[in-house]
Amino acid sequence: MKDVFDYVDRHAPRFVKELQAFLRQPSISAQGKGVEDAANIVERMFSSLGAKVQVFRIEGAAPLVTAEIPGDQEKTVLFYNHYDVQPPEPLDRWRHDPFGAEIDGGKLYARGAADNKGDLMARVKAAEALLKVRGKLPVTVKFVAEGEEEIGSPNLDRYAKEHPEAFRADACIWETGGREEDGRLELTLGCKGLCYAHIEVEGGSYDLHSSLAAVVPSPVWRLLWALNSLKNEKEEILIPGFYDDVCQPGPEDVELIEKLPASPERLAKLFGIDRFVLDLAGKDVLKRLYFEPTCNVCGLSAGYEGPGSKTVLPSKAMAKLDMRLVPDQRPDDIARKFEDYLKVKGYGDFRVTWLGAEHPARTDPNSRIVKVIREASAELFGKEPSVYPTSAGTGPMYQVAAQFGTPAVGVGIGNPESRVHGPDENVNVSDFLEGIKFMALVLERFAG
Amino acid sequence: MKDVFDYVDRHAPRFVKELQAFLRQPSISAQGKGVEDAANIVERMFSSLGAKVQVFRIEGAAPLVTAEIPGDQEKTVLFYNHYDVQPPEPLDRWRHDPFGAEIDGGKLYARGAADNKGDLMARVKAAEALLKVRGKLPVTVKFVAEGEEEIGSPNLDRYAKEHPEAFRADACIWETGGREEDGRLELTLGCKGLCYAHIEVEGGSYDLHSSLAAVVPSPVWRLLWALNSLKNEKEEILIPGFYDDVCQPGPEDVELIEKLPASPERLAKLFGIDRFVLDLAGKDVLKRLYFEPTCNVCGLSAGYEGPGSKTVLPSKAMAKLDMRLVPDQRPDDIARKFEDYLKVKGYGDFRVTWLGAEHPARTDPNSRIVKVIREASAELFGKEPSVYPTSAGTGPMYQVAAQFGTPAVGVGIGNPESRVHGPDENVNVSDFLEGIKFMALVLERFAG
Repeated sequence: MKDVFDYVDRHAPRFVKELQAFLRQPSISAQGKGVEDAANIVERMFSSLGAKVQVFRIEGAAPLVTAEIPGDQEKTVLFYNHYDVQPPEPLDRWRHDPFGAEIDGGKLYARGAADNKGDLMARVKAAEALLKVRGKLPVTVKFVAEGEEEIGSPNLDRYAKEHPEAFRADACIWETGGREEDGRLELTLGCKGLCYAHIEVEGGSYDLHSSLAAVVPSPVWRLLWALNSLKNEKEEILIPGFYDDVCQPGPEDVELIEKLPASPERLAKLFGIDRFVLDLAGKDVLKRLYFEPTCNVCGLSAGYEGPGSKTVLPSKAMAKLDMRLVPDQRPDDIARKFEDYLKVKGYGDFRVTWLGAEHPARTDPNSRIVKVIREASAELFGKEPSVYPTSAGTGPMYQVAAQFGTPAVGVGIGNPESRVHGPDENVNVSDFLEGIKFMALVLERFAG
Repeated sequence: MKDVFDYVDRHAPRFVKELQAFLRQPSISAQGKGVEDAANIVERMFSSLGAKVQVFRIEGAAPLVTAEIPGDQEKTVLFYNHYDVQPPEPLDRWRHDPFGAEIDGGKLYARGAADNKGDLMARVKAAEALLKVRGKLPVTVKFVAEGEEEIGSPNLDRYAKEHPEAFRADACIWETGGREEDGRLELTLGCKGLCYAHIEVEGGSYDLHSSLAAVVPSPVWRLLWALNSLKNEKEEILIPGFYDDVCQPGPEDVELIEKLPASPERLAKLFGIDRFVLDLAGKDVLKRLYFEPTCNVCGLSAGYEGPGSKTVLPSKAMAKLDMRLVPDQRPDDIARKFEDYLKVKGYGDFRVTWLGAEHPARTDPNSRIVKVIREASAELFGKEPSVYPTSAGTGPMYQVAAQFGTPAVGVGIGNPESRVHGPDENVNVSDFLEGIKFMALVLERFAG
């Protein structure tokens, strides 16, 4: 691979400039800013590889930009990425312009640098390097780049169902990832699923004087009682059937956890907490983090929230709830069980709006792509990656890969200081360039 | 009393003008607007009666304006009033200038017209009429006018403790009141007490990604569990000892409820609710409203409260809670039991700030002042009043009257359309003038 790596080194300044230009294009899906312009840049990036580019559209949705470059063999690798970014707010917390793409001390600062324009660019440049040096790719490469990942990929499943040929592959390289503190590559083999509920409860037609609380039913209390019935102080989720389809982790999954370098005690310090739930410690924290579903309250609102006292019986109350799912829980099934339970408990009048639904997905640790990544990491970086049986977070891995039977693995160019979704998001320029080489090597080795 | 009533009729235009002038002076204690100027007006009003006026001051507090006019007998009647008003906001909901004091269709519109500058003025003018016509008052009259009632009378207890001689009396006429829809005078014999808690719960040092909910303790869940432990779905308050000092209402109190004209079903319609708690109906609603203590959530706040979804594990959560107390519950005792309970439940780290504490107070229905008001109502208005054993709301009746053993009764010049605390607050001009006569009659009859 020396020839390909040399090409990367020679063209490194240009690759960095191209990434900077891409990062300077805002593409904030949550705010509808610059998304279409970013899609055009991605389309040109893919076209410059000589790929067969297709831009699929759904009305009102960001376009799905796809590309295919036929390769040497019958094997196909799919790169899933997104060209949208999180909002940069709060702006006053940035030391660098979020869309300035400045390089400072070897770091490239921009919203999207780590999540995940840097990864997308690294993959495009890996393909370019292989194409320029070898004349063709060792495997067929597909790109799927969506523009709504940061708002929950609301249209991705429809895109996938309407254009399955753009998604089918023998392996999928997931959007992003990073390094451990000790420099090892992180390799992630799944995503949790998600059910996101917005719950509104109504009482009287207007806020009443709180002296009436003796006799007027309070929507706040009713919400509190209903939420309380969802999870007890032992952190057990009480929705009947919630755990029915939870697959217990296999011995290989547990073994992966045992090998992870993460120190929960350091995490606790970082988060400013003095204990984990159930007073868990060590690897038990990680096992729960990766293998257990959750029921979390993201937001609560009712009545008077300002300073001082106001004696009011609120006429409505609101909660936002997210449940992270693990295989083989299904979001539609969990949503139904949730609503049924509310009804049984006497809260059938609550207005529940489902703002997100994702299937969980998990990749077999014995998949060929996992083996290839492990070996490529040892070859290029001199170290085996640390392998996570799943992310604790959620992504559309089911829609993109699992529903087509494609094993998917998450790797990327970030690092523990990349501040993904935060102010001063950044990547190391060197990690970007190494990421190009790594992806070229993975494609080469996947060909076998 | 014809001579006194004739005096009121002759001077009615001037009395109304004086009330208008008083109402045009804003005195918004919550916003610190015009309170001192209003106190000066009250001081002049009292001085014009030839009263011995004393203005007491506590640094940072609105002054307490007091007056005493020695009367014919050894009996003393205390008028408790306040010269501050609620904020007029929302201003765009008023059809009349809140400080314009316009008369329109026989109604005088202004913030404070009903609550309770109109009452204070009616009482001053009752004293004036008696003094001018008779040369002296039939009983000794004391006035206590505070400027912080609308913000919870935070300094009234200290004023009362430092100047008890300004408060001592044989009966106390409470600040305000009104009429039933059928025109009967409402007579109220007590106030509930209050404990108001602002509760803050902290978790990590910043909002975390909600994927961490599997292992990071959530301050929102901890708040939900703690609140849930305070009251169950049967509306039973679970704080140990909460009900220990609750006096069951006596047969006379219950009899008063039986005689009340209020229709809970009409109230339900007004409030836009389809049932009362515990599916109570009829007089049972009123019994619970007046005789039961409450535990009400006035406000809740945590995490993301905006539109759409955000997957966050909030770092803090807040609740505001008010508990209305009935005799002989004591706010300090309840606050202590509340905090002890939180500790026992494992929530001793919650930051609880007490924003209000009032003792309940209830007046014996057999008190002489009650009899006098009943008879004076029958005499002047041709109808017995409807007698409420207590208000469902809270006022500083304990500080002003009960702690000195003074029976206190609430009557006033409002009506069901007076919109107390709301936009277009108003009183009927005729009720103001009748209120003057009524108060003069009460003083006369109380002399015996």
